[in-house]
Amino acid sequence: MNDGPKSIRGATACSLRPLLMPRSVVVVGASRKPGAIGHRVLNNLLGYPFQGPVFAVNPRAECIEGTTCYTSVRELPDAVDLAIIATPAATVPGVLEDCVARGVPAAVVISAGFSEAGPDGVALQQQIKALITRSGIRVVGPNCLGIINTDPAVRLNASFSQVLPPVGNIALSSQSGGVAVAALTAARRFGLGLSGFASVGNKVDVSGNDLLEFWEQDPRTAVILLYLESFGNPRRFSKIARRVGRTKPVIALKGGRSQAGSRAAQSHTAALAARGVAVDALFRQSGVVRVETLEELFDAAAVLSLQPLAPGPRVGIVTNAGGPGILAADACEAAGLVVPPTSHALRTALTGILPAAAGFNNPIDMIASATPEQYEKVIALTLASSDFDALIVEYIAVGQKPADIRAAIARGVGSGRRAGAKDRPVVACFMVEESMAEVPAAPGEESFPMFEFPEAAARALGRAVQYADWRRQPAGVYVDSGNRFNAARTLCEAALRDRGPGWLSATETRQLLASAGFQLPGGGTATSADEAVALARQIGGPVAIKLASRVILHKSDVGGVRLGLLGDAAIRSAFDEIREAAIRVAGADAFDGVVVQPMVGSSVEIVAGMTHDPSFGPLIMFGLGGIHVEVLADVCFRIAPLSDHDAAEMVRSIRGYRLLEGYRGHPRCDVAALERMLLDLSGLVEAVPVIAELDFNPVMALAEGSGTVIVDARIRLA
Amino acid sequence: MNDGPKSIRGATACSLRPLLMPRSVVVVGASRKPGAIGHRVLNNLLGYPFQGPVFAVNPRAECIEGTTCYTSVRELPDAVDLAIIATPAATVPGVLEDCVARGVPAAVVISAGFSEAGPDGVALQQQIKALITRSGIRVVGPNCLGIINTDPAVRLNASFSQVLPPVGNIALSSQSGGVAVAALTAARRFGLGLSGFASVGNKVDVSGNDLLEFWEQDPRTAVILLYLESFGNPRRFSKIARRVGRTKPVIALKGGRSQAGSRAAQSHTAALAARGVAVDALFRQSGVVRVETLEELFDAAAVLSLQPLAPGPRVGIVTNAGGPGILAADACEAAGLVVPPTSHALRTALTGILPAAAGFNNPIDMIASATPEQYEKVIALTLASSDFDALIVEYIAVGQKPADIRAAIARGVGSGRRAGAKDRPVVACFMVEESMAEVPAAPGEESFPMFEFPEAAARALGRAVQYADWRRQPAGVYVDSGNRFNAARTLCEAALRDRGPGWLSATETRQLLASAGFQLPGGGTATSADEAVALARQIGGPVAIKLASRVILHKSDVGGVRLGLLGDAAIRSAFDEIREAAIRVAGADAFDGVVVQPMVGSSVEIVAGMTHDPSFGPLIMFGLGGIHVEVLADVCFRIAPLSDHDAAEMVRSIRGYRLLEGYRGHPRCDVAALERMLLDLSGLVEAVPVIAELDFNPVMALAEGSGTVIVDARIRLA
Repeated sequence: MNDGPKSIRGATACSLRPLLMPRSVVVVGASRKPGAIGHRVLNNLLGYPFQGPVFAVNPRAECIEGTTCYTSVRELPDAVDLAIIATPAATVPGVLEDCVARGVPAAVVISAGFSEAGPDGVALQQQIKALITRSGIRVVGPNCLGIINTDPAVRLNASFSQVLPPVGNIALSSQSGGVAVAALTAARRFGLGLSGFASVGNKVDVSGNDLLEFWEQDPRTAVILLYLESFGNPRRFSKIARRVGRTKPVIALKGGRSQAGSRAAQSHTAALAARGVAVDALFRQSGVVRVETLEELFDAAAVLSLQPLAPGPRVGIVTNAGGPGILAADACEAAGLVVPPTSHALRTALTGILPAAAGFNNPIDMIASATPEQYEKVIALTLASSDFDALIVEYIAVGQKPADIRAAIARGVGSGRRAGAKDRPVVACFMVEESMAEVPAAPGEESFPMFEFPEAAARALGRAVQYADWRRQPAGVYVDSGNRFNAARTLCEAALRDRGPGWLSATETRQLLASAGFQLPGGGTATSADEAVALARQIGGPVAIKLASRVILHKSDVGGVRLGLLGDAAIRSAFDEIREAAIRVAGADAFDGVVVQPMVGSSVEIVAGMTHDPSFGPLIMFGLGGIHVEVLADVCFRIAPLSDHDAAEMVRSIRGYRLLEGYRGHPRCDVAALERMLLDLSGLVEAVPVIAELDFNPVMALAEGSGTVIVDARIRLA
Repeated sequence: MNDGPKSIRGATACSLRPLLMPRSVVVVGASRKPGAIGHRVLNNLLGYPFQGPVFAVNPRAECIEGTTCYTSVRELPDAVDLAIIATPAATVPGVLEDCVARGVPAAVVISAGFSEAGPDGVALQQQIKALITRSGIRVVGPNCLGIINTDPAVRLNASFSQVLPPVGNIALSSQSGGVAVAALTAARRFGLGLSGFASVGNKVDVSGNDLLEFWEQDPRTAVILLYLESFGNPRRFSKIARRVGRTKPVIALKGGRSQAGSRAAQSHTAALAARGVAVDALFRQSGVVRVETLEELFDAAAVLSLQPLAPGPRVGIVTNAGGPGILAADACEAAGLVVPPTSHALRTALTGILPAAAGFNNPIDMIASATPEQYEKVIALTLASSDFDALIVEYIAVGQKPADIRAAIARGVGSGRRAGAKDRPVVACFMVEESMAEVPAAPGEESFPMFEFPEAAARALGRAVQYADWRRQPAGVYVDSGNRFNAARTLCEAALRDRGPGWLSATETRQLLASAGFQLPGGGTATSADEAVALARQIGGPVAIKLASRVILHKSDVGGVRLGLLGDAAIRSAFDEIREAAIRVAGADAFDGVVVQPMVGSSVEIVAGMTHDPSFGPLIMFGLGGIHVEVLADVCFRIAPLSDHDAAEMVRSIRGYRLLEGYRGHPRCDVAALERMLLDLSGLVEAVPVIAELDFNPVMALAEGSGTVIVDARIRLA
């Protein structure tokens, strides 16, 4: 489509134009039977109404709802942008062939009975997939509710939904038809306006990723909501979401986090149960606003779609009742927001407006006698003051008409905005009998999100502030590792070729890490007691002696780690005991020798590593080491590759970070060196994809300036 | 009141009878000015209407709203149970004097201007307090919204609220008038029925504790909700709540948990900011259902007031859409519930009812075509099966009338109940456009809570299941320590008398703990190197030597802890070095000698202790020891006295409990001994109230059967 408007750029976005902004539409499987999906789809299209020609295909009818019926798509008299298909599953490949033959560039397959419905369905879906690959036709579905575009110039309701959302600037993609219905219903009930909507079903072609790219370019869309059960291509998602998030907030709800939920997700849309830790990492690294419930999805969308991004976390609370103000303050702190006291200047200004019995601290309690005029003035003043970055306004029913209070708040917000507070979001909480979504606003009235409970308002504001904070941070930088890991790759590829999958030997591991520039302890590997003694003499001072074995992985469990050894006798007997233990436990082949290392000085024990997630690729882990912390699981994960920002955040996100900062007389650790080590680890696993698993354990974080020593490591190839 | 009905027993409950179940009422400060509080109160009373005589006092009016006005309470022609006072604050003490003189046993003081309003108000409130103490009159308020009793035989609306709640079995006490209004509004909006309601304001007399005791005895009340900002008497609360909770769930929301929130709570009702950890402990130990938001308060109330207590945590999910089912399953697991797969038997039964495309696993996805009949049958079957302990039923709008689905669910629940599932709660989630609270139910239709989002339904069910679980557990047992701590008390009292407040010496501490039967390491205190050597020889094997000092509290910071010493020379030099370090750091008085102890074998390091909370009394702490864990703060708190149940729960509630259970070759610790130590610690601080602070650090948890050794301890008296 070369005639797309300038605003829709990019190959994906362009190819979706006939899908989401068609100039003409055909319903294949249009039905005259009320209640049938083919009837509902046609009715929805005509009733919205669609702003271009609508055709119908039904070989057994001449005309349905005033629309002439054709026997096949091939017979259509004019070119058509979009086919909406609601015929039985078995007929869908044929219908799509017809579309391709007639030059229809896009289709929505509403029909069910594909990969969600057993082996026959899987085969049918594969047939469609092949046809798409061959022809380039863009297809939404199958097994979906359909798509909607509320653009007044388009007015496309290509769905069998019974509810139509209000018009607005929120776009929504849902992997579940049921959640799609729930979302459209909730949008209507809570007055959330949508720009576009897509139920992606089995995602044979068009995915959430494609829609993200389309809505990124769509000037009518300000906020993008995603309901996901699986990720087709998490790496592409991460890349796109990270870019889109810089200009438009992406809010995501992931279904199937629990065991039962993912069991259901599999039977429901054959979703791969993406592991929680990987999803968390993915969203965090991409700046996606992650919510935990459907309600929070809409709540966060309401704030981000109607209000500017807050410049900071300081919230002012204006209320006509103390208790609800306290609950809002509690919820703000729980959401990571700050509720600072009012400044002297603002307090002085407020005393001119409010009675003496009011609360002038923050929360600002205007007490039950608060009039609309007081609401207006206090909000204008508070918003324009430099005390706060955002405002929560509460109203409990004490006699005023809620609509009057809402209008007063709107006027106050308007004054505040004119006085310069253009970037401060305002959210309201009305605890009243009626649903405020149903109370009509005056024309031109400034709009802001209205919540039913103070805690929901605070939580949603918290998500919005977190997003604003992410957007203010410079985008993370990815280091290009150049040739740095070439030797490591050569070594691994040779080992894999020679021996097949498995663990590298201690010597190979040491060699690999040294070649890649990781900091290692002195010493080396000894295969005899004499060699061990020689190495220890060379090191001088107390040494550590550890079993080297490609078979026994938990050395300490077999007594394979001896620390602080001094003197030839001690070293000899340690060597002998370790050898005997290894052979006793796992046979003669289990003993490759021992590693002799100097004892590392004052330091904090760390673990780092990489594990492969089947759908997300390499996951990097970082945490405190030691047996206690294995129990306490103080670790965090990120998906490779890491940006500098990711590495800095990882080190700081564990509970034990305080230990690294210096604690009770211990010196501060070399945090920068830890970050470098994580970036190098990420670079290594990206550059050498045959590394299937990697463990640095323990890593000693030394004092500032002294770096980070990888004391022990193991690497598995596959 | 000796004529109270049999159902209201107990002194407190009886004394509140004229307040909450009055036979006649007088409004003092009745006003003819519409909008005035004195007018609204009288109007509310007459309009509800109250089922007994209503009098009015206003010296400047003859008759208001058809009610004859008297000039003073003293002039009233008949005896009156309850006075509702809405006169200016300064006149309230006089009005209460009149009430006492006329024999009025109870009053609600709605007027503001007392302790919340500066020194003059505090003085007025003290005046009222004195009058109450002298006369025994029961007073609610001042500074409150009033009270409501929905009993058809009473119909008391003694408040200036503009909304009246529906009639039901939930009682609500609120410390904030604003939250009270919000609650009454929400009750109306979400269709929650109340039995009674009280806004307790400044709590000069009647507190949440009193109301708990009243509603405990009230046959119309099944669930009690509390909104609290402070605890007048937390120990009494704990005792009452624990008892009431055995028969009726008590659900509490605590406002003022955050810094800003407690700042507001203080300015608002002079509430003491109760520390989060103490409040957590209090609720947990009392079986109180703690909620985090106002919405959760009502949600949990809806489940507990309308449904039976679940026999276990297994939830069945019945839905007409996959995605919402997945979200419910995710939320169930997050709420501690279990979503097991369906049994073979149930699955077979379901195949007779549902189409092949349905999901027969749990969630049971009846798909969008689900009819009311299918809802009815599937629910009846599922409820009556032994697969689940509770049911969540979801409906998304796909064409059926929500009222028809609700009626079908109700019939299904009825069949299930008749088939024996009397104890299995059912909650529903209707994602529809209308508010289900406003859709009238058929007469006699079985009722169940209806949520708008699946996650809210799951969370509320989770709270209810947690409560049911608490109620199934036997009540905790408190050990009577008899004379066991007499010697400890004598020792502490003597030390306090002789030296005043401060720390006990190492010798005194050792003596005290030994007298109380705590397990201590061998060895003793030495004031010379010779003594230290002698003690070490006596012990045999390696010893630990530690500074004994009442001045230096962090021994290890001054090098005052030496471990694993063997041989006279090592012991002598350790003694000298410790003495020199102590004297260098804090002067000659800082050195009381050293403690010489045998090294303790394989063990896990623990800390335990007690700190005094200004309003909650002694708080017992338990956690993992060691420097790492100080950083990770893996500790938990409970309020003394501890029951056996509390002690068992404490030990198991830390993240590091896995270490105590035996981990990677370490033996299982003597958990029973740890529990005994905690119970003894609780017994000690209860028996010896002059102990202001106590630390056992470290405590060595030895292998099973070997006990728990308190290696070091310090005790402060005040």
